[in-house]
Amino acid sequence: MIVVMQKDASQEHIQHMVERVEKLGLKSHVINGTERTVIAAIGEKREYTRESLESGPGVAEVVPILAPYKVASREVKPEPTQIQVGSLTVGAGTLGVIAGPCSVESETQIIETAKAVKAAGATGLRGGAFKPRTSPYSFQGLKEQGLKFLAAAREETGLAIVTEVVSTDDVELVSRYADVLQIGARNMQNYRLLEAVGNTNSTILLKRGASATIEELLLAAEYILNEGNPQVMLCERGIRTFESHTRFTLPLASVAYLQNKTHLPVVIDPSHGTGHTYLVPSMAAAAVAAGADGLILEVHPDPECALSDGYQTLDFTQFEETMDRCRKVAAALEVNL
Amino acid sequence: MIVVMQKDASQEHIQHMVERVEKLGLKSHVINGTERTVIAAIGEKREYTRESLESGPGVAEVVPILAPYKVASREVKPEPTQIQVGSLTVGAGTLGVIAGPCSVESETQIIETAKAVKAAGATGLRGGAFKPRTSPYSFQGLKEQGLKFLAAAREETGLAIVTEVVSTDDVELVSRYADVLQIGARNMQNYRLLEAVGNTNSTILLKRGASATIEELLLAAEYILNEGNPQVMLCERGIRTFESHTRFTLPLASVAYLQNKTHLPVVIDPSHGTGHTYLVPSMAAAAVAAGADGLILEVHPDPECALSDGYQTLDFTQFEETMDRCRKVAAALEVNL
Amino acid sequence: MIVVMQKDASQEHIQHMVERVEKLGLKSHVINGTERTVIAAIGEKREYTRESLESGPGVAEVVPILAPYKVASREVKPEPTQIQVGSLTVGAGTLGVIAGPCSVESETQIIETAKAVKAAGATGLRGGAFKPRTSPYSFQGLKEQGLKFLAAAREETGLAIVTEVVSTDDVELVSRYADVLQIGARNMQNYRLLEAVGNTNSTILLKRGASATIEELLLAAEYILNEGNPQVMLCERGIRTFESHTRFTLPLASVAYLQNKTHLPVVIDPSHGTGHTYLVPSMAAAAVAAGADGLILEVHPDPECALSDGYQTLDFTQFEETMDRCRKVAAALEVNL
Amino acid sequence: MIVVMQKDASQEHIQHMVERVEKLGLKSHVINGTERTVIAAIGEKREYTRESLESGPGVAEVVPILAPYKVASREVKPEPTQIQVGSLTVGAGTLGVIAGPCSVESETQIIETAKAVKAAGATGLRGGAFKPRTSPYSFQGLKEQGLKFLAAAREETGLAIVTEVVSTDDVELVSRYADVLQIGARNMQNYRLLEAVGNTNSTILLKRGASATIEELLLAAEYILNEGNPQVMLCERGIRTFESHTRFTLPLASVAYLQNKTHLPVVIDPSHGTGHTYLVPSMAAAAVAAGADGLILEVHPDPECALSDGYQTLDFTQFEETMDRCRKVAAALEVNL
Repeated sequence: MIVVMQKDASQEHIQHMVERVEKLGLKSHVINGTERTVIAAIGEKREYTRESLESGPGVAEVVPILAPYKVASREVKPEPTQIQVGSLTVGAGTLGVIAGPCSVESETQIIETAKAVKAAGATGLRGGAFKPRTSPYSFQGLKEQGLKFLAAAREETGLAIVTEVVSTDDVELVSRYADVLQIGARNMQNYRLLEAVGNTNSTILLKRGASATIEELLLAAEYILNEGNPQVMLCERGIRTFESHTRFTLPLASVAYLQNKTHLPVVIDPSHGTGHTYLVPSMAAAAVAAGADGLILEVHPDPECALSDGYQTLDFTQFEETMDRCRKVAAALEVNL
Repeated sequence: MIVVMQKDASQEHIQHMVERVEKLGLKSHVINGTERTVIAAIGEKREYTRESLESGPGVAEVVPILAPYKVASREVKPEPTQIQVGSLTVGAGTLGVIAGPCSVESETQIIETAKAVKAAGATGLRGGAFKPRTSPYSFQGLKEQGLKFLAAAREETGLAIVTEVVSTDDVELVSRYADVLQIGARNMQNYRLLEAVGNTNSTILLKRGASATIEELLLAAEYILNEGNPQVMLCERGIRTFESHTRFTLPLASVAYLQNKTHLPVVIDPSHGTGHTYLVPSMAAAAVAAGADGLILEVHPDPECALSDGYQTLDFTQFEETMDRCRKVAAALEVNL
Repeated sequence: MIVVMQKDASQEHIQHMVERVEKLGLKSHVINGTERTVIAAIGEKREYTRESLESGPGVAEVVPILAPYKVASREVKPEPTQIQVGSLTVGAGTLGVIAGPCSVESETQIIETAKAVKAAGATGLRGGAFKPRTSPYSFQGLKEQGLKFLAAAREETGLAIVTEVVSTDDVELVSRYADVLQIGARNMQNYRLLEAVGNTNSTILLKRGASATIEELLLAAEYILNEGNPQVMLCERGIRTFESHTRFTLPLASVAYLQNKTHLPVVIDPSHGTGHTYLVPSMAAAAVAAGADGLILEVHPDPECALSDGYQTLDFTQFEETMDRCRKVAAALEVNL
Repeated sequence: MIVVMQKDASQEHIQHMVERVEKLGLKSHVINGTERTVIAAIGEKREYTRESLESGPGVAEVVPILAPYKVASREVKPEPTQIQVGSLTVGAGTLGVIAGPCSVESETQIIETAKAVKAAGATGLRGGAFKPRTSPYSFQGLKEQGLKFLAAAREETGLAIVTEVVSTDDVELVSRYADVLQIGARNMQNYRLLEAVGNTNSTILLKRGASATIEELLLAAEYILNEGNPQVMLCERGIRTFESHTRFTLPLASVAYLQNKTHLPVVIDPSHGTGHTYLVPSMAAAAVAAGADGLILEVHPDPECALSDGYQTLDFTQFEETMDRCRKVAAALEVNL
């Protein structure tokens, strides 16, 4: 950690900060520059000691040198983590494709979709039973009934099931049915929920919050890993920016950036990331070319009649075309798909 | 709702959409422009029927005319809501000032702070017992012990207590101690939690998520109101933008904008909204001049030693000076403070 | 255009707005909804008549139906525009690759680079002679001397030259040497400069401003087209968001979005779009998979010693690897490269 | 400057970077932390030597300690700069109020407005003669004729004139008529224009670009100061964020932040900063309470008929009310207005 003093910091302030650094169990090292003094604090821990120095007298800023996450970092585990759960393999050279409707609406709908996406090459089935909706007046999901329909679809097709859990109260229930528990973007910093899923044996798909920094995403993953559950996939689903022609802005550079910082696999969600059906196929292919470890895509037998997210959902034909385009790119880059 | 068709939409597409509009129970009205056709859908409901039209064939976009929130809107209740709970009055011409530490750290710390902020003019006491922290390695709060210390501080000073609740599991417990339950920015779209506090008799302080739109904030309030709890204050605490010299960007225009759309009172948080102690006094005064109904401020006996948020916390003297500045502005504008 | 009246708009206000609409030469059409009245204005022109209605009494908002740009729109010219200038072809199935240093530094540097990028498959040469720098203390470019070196490099390799023009004063001079005039992101709304290059016979590469909307980008293109110069390429180079791990956020969804709205070709700049050398190769390949019409990449013989932008610049080996990856993706998707 | 090496940086890389630092004329100082090595570079200059180190082998990041601007900084000139030009005084305890229409439309309009705003307490007159418009089809201003009308209004009222210059070609012409040359937000990084106005004797009002950082704003000011013109006012006019209920987001914390970093006065533009007439009065008062040195406001005899920006323009009565509110706040805080 580097404590940068203000230009006019007094000798007392500098001495005071040296003592504070040492009280934190760190070694201090004072460097007198031509215009300012900085104090290097050696032996930095990750427990945000930074905060407690920032309000010291005469301090201009505190620059951390280490990332605040640990278990998620590549420094701790250099080789990439591969997730393997039922039919679904994600990471370390294998691209997993999770597809299905935004919401489970009926047994027929989900089984029909499962068959279609499997035929087109998907290796996991998504479908929401507990839906976090912006408006209290929107469809809130079929709840346990939806989970049962998902289980029936797995029975029928063998596809691993990915479904969202929105509350600590439901973790046990959803774990009984699902292969992968999804933490949605709105809950990325719902720490109690992160701890709860960290205490299951389920695989977790953790979505980035729409305004979360990459560091905050990795710290959210750290909450789960820290409880002892190592089975975590990260999902980039777009961030909120001034750009409104797409619902969110999908930063594909997150793929290579995250792969540089963490061993956890990175899944891309082009459906939420663009918010428009016609933008999904090209962004799915682009995600594959960017080196993504997985894709998660919204597919529905009849998007126009979907109870949620129809505007960003592919129908079966569009999904086949998207898979075709992705398969070509994956083959060219020697990725398993 | 206005359904705008694409330039090259066929007659069948237009007819199809007219039928879809009518199937939703709305009256349709086709307008043939010089370049495009639009269909006005009359009798719009707020239940996001918009979504189901957007994926129709030949549709370019769907423009809603009504806001999606209802109970929170000024159209439904034109007169401003005044919150009155214990020592704290917020709204309708009275400015409430909630002050206190980020985290409750000890009985001495919270009682000492309560006395100091009361003496300087605060009408409510804040203090976190359950802390949502970005890093799992940071201080997580004293939990129930913290609530007891808050209750002791209320006993001593008479100040109403504002404290955060982060999980449905704790709603009952926190309600037993607190006068006002705070929903933090990270939980603004934790819908289960919103429903849970909507089922209490407590007053709620709902903070805007760092990337939530104003419409999403009002829909989050709607979740609470919809459960039957009308005692809701909104809190603007800054949004996340490219601007990084401040931790968040505090858009004070939200005050007048919200007061135009909703009857709920609007509280401003200059501590989180700026992230730097030295920016707090001027932004607190600016909030008063902008017409805010309340302020919430971080105050600590010794910010440098605070277990959280020290860099944006006022000490007692700084708080007195801030109150002095705010009181002058309030007096000039004839607001009760 | 749809004029949405406020809920409590009086009959006089509605009548007043009907008259205003008609005074603008449009036909009005009043629709009385259950809660609000809207006035459809038929015959909408693109000249932003919207503005003059928005401040009318009782008006809640004005929703335009037509895009404000015309000559740039696909509605006016459905088939894609292909740019063909010297060695460089961009669009309509052919991917152009423009590569070279941020700044021209010497004749040797630019000729050496030109040979290397040509050998690796580039079809255009970039290099800045007039540099717009954030700090007045940074290297400002070799000016005309730099243009001469670029011309020498074209002489040597046959590569078409792309170079930036930053002032109306230099348009004539730069046009004499360059094949393509680049308008940089900072000058996207320097309208005098847009008009000046619109009056040349040169091809224009127009970069999107870091906070410009897509609509503003197309209106900037419209300034050039409107002066009679149809040779315009658009360039997405990243937008400014809260995300700071990359210097800018590169929204590849702009490719398909723009191709849907305009016939002009879309070039992607992964160097500025990411700001880090190690992120460039994957984002270049992703841009190809997303359907981009061209790439523009920073390449330097020794990035560590570059006078500008070294941190986002590829060396020759890295450029070859990037081209290799892009070529594989292009071949898989049957794009000429 | 602190050069942070990667965790796995080799001894050769560290040695290489030490040599590079010393070749730049700086003293190096190696600190071996428990996990990483950092190199402190002492004697840092402001000429962005940072860039050339960032692409070094084994370098993780480079952290500058000094701000890159110099002449604009408070470290160089601690006392605040007061601008005094004709009727207009801005800064060091005096609040200047510049008011007038977006565009000069006729002699009557500008003279009538000048009289009205002067009567209400304005000390400067704004009015655009050269208009930078997003669309080529919008009203582009009366050009020199507009300048003549402005001069007539000054003749009539004695108010100092503030008007925009959009091109180096017009600097000489506009300088002949205007007291203050405005550099608009779109031209904040038009460096040739900054240099040109830096070579005049006119006072400059420099508006922040909608996505410019504060550091970029100060570097833009530095371009002007560096040419020898010390008469620069900064203007915060709102930044572009995801928030779309206001046209821009007006961060009033910029006032105290800038006053901490620079001696130049800070003017706030609540008209562009909010984009809606009804939000202007409260944000103007808030700006005064935040400690702004000046205000710039759009006022028009009949906003509904204004040729530009009507939706954010005050009429005379609204301006009087706004001034009244601002005067009360200024008096309470002992600011001259």
